[in-house]
Amino acid sequence: MNDTNNDKHWDILHSEYLHRRPWLTVRQDTVRLPNGTVNPEFYILEYPEWINVIALTEDEHFVLIRQYRHGLRKTLIELVAGVVDPTDSSPLEAARRELFEETGYGDGQWEPFLTVAPNASAMTNLSHTFLARGVREISTQHLESTEDIDVILLTRDEVYRRLREGQFIQGLMAAPLWKYFCENR
Amino acid sequence: MNDTNNDKHWDILHSEYLHRRPWLTVRQDTVRLPNGTVNPEFYILEYPEWINVIALTEDEHFVLIRQYRHGLRKTLIELVAGVVDPTDSSPLEAARRELFEETGYGDGQWEPFLTVAPNASAMTNLSHTFLARGVREISTQHLESTEDIDVILLTRDEVYRRLREGQFIQGLMAAPLWKYFCENR
Repeated sequence: MNDTNNDKHWDILHSEYLHRRPWLTVRQDTVRLPNGTVNPEFYILEYPEWINVIALTEDEHFVLIRQYRHGLRKTLIELVAGVVDPTDSSPLEAARRELFEETGYGDGQWEPFLTVAPNASAMTNLSHTFLARGVREISTQHLESTEDIDVILLTRDEVYRRLREGQFIQGLMAAPLWKYFCENR
Repeated sequence: MNDTNNDKHWDILHSEYLHRRPWLTVRQDTVRLPNGTVNPEFYILEYPEWINVIALTEDEHFVLIRQYRHGLRKTLIELVAGVVDPTDSSPLEAARRELFEETGYGDGQWEPFLTVAPNASAMTNLSHTFLARGVREISTQHLESTEDIDVILLTRDEVYRRLREGQFIQGLMAAPLWKYFCENR
């Protein structure tokens, strides 16, 4: 079994954009499978790369945020997360910027921790998690008018308890958090 | 801090559907934040509930599938996954159906394992993972013409190695797999 073998690759026979808005880019592809089947209606959502951050203070508190999420219509406690902007030189820079803007925290030692796909079938992007140890409050928040974000510091035990209870509902955050507690117990 | 407090709730001032296709439902909401800011362009993707399955045979092999994923344009090894159809009585029934259709495996002892959100900000649905122990091959695959799926059996050590290497790229699958190895080492 050769993992890099892309023998199941689909050919794109036709492709057009239905929407190209700043927060929504929808493409409709007509695709042909290796078995010859043609599917005229395969929708792809194009997004920029995403990032999120497991940010730990010197005394092992997690720097988290609390905000409203309109898809589920719930207020949730989450990792800091965001989009890699065209002005960011890398996903790491985007992660540092988002942590600073949303919480005022910075500095610390940063490393890439986990990269996953939000949806390998229908979306084009990846989500990169960074682990930042030893961050500290270096400023106040810098929020836009569409952002309404509380900063929440939780102990390691409290984060693990909430994770086991399923409170970190975002899959892109549950994956790196479970990895973190799997590797750091 | 009251977790169930939804004080940050947004009001929907206007809502309309841009697309209502079988595989793509896009809604555009005009929303008002608690601070009074109005955002006329918040896009929501409505999906049915999703499921996936950590399926283990009696001798502790993982029943996985290999298929092409057009979003990333790569052939990937994944958990069995799918959509809860209107004819499924529950997410559990959908998971049993998908495992049977995509691999021919069934029976075993099933339990709910993890529920996460694909995207709490922009999507309305949840993804439910089930843990099925002691499954066995009870049939051949039952695939549609748009499905081109290989069944792959891997040992527990091989799955854990690939997980650590980041080969299980789908976030909705990495989250339950990390949880599984965190709790079963």
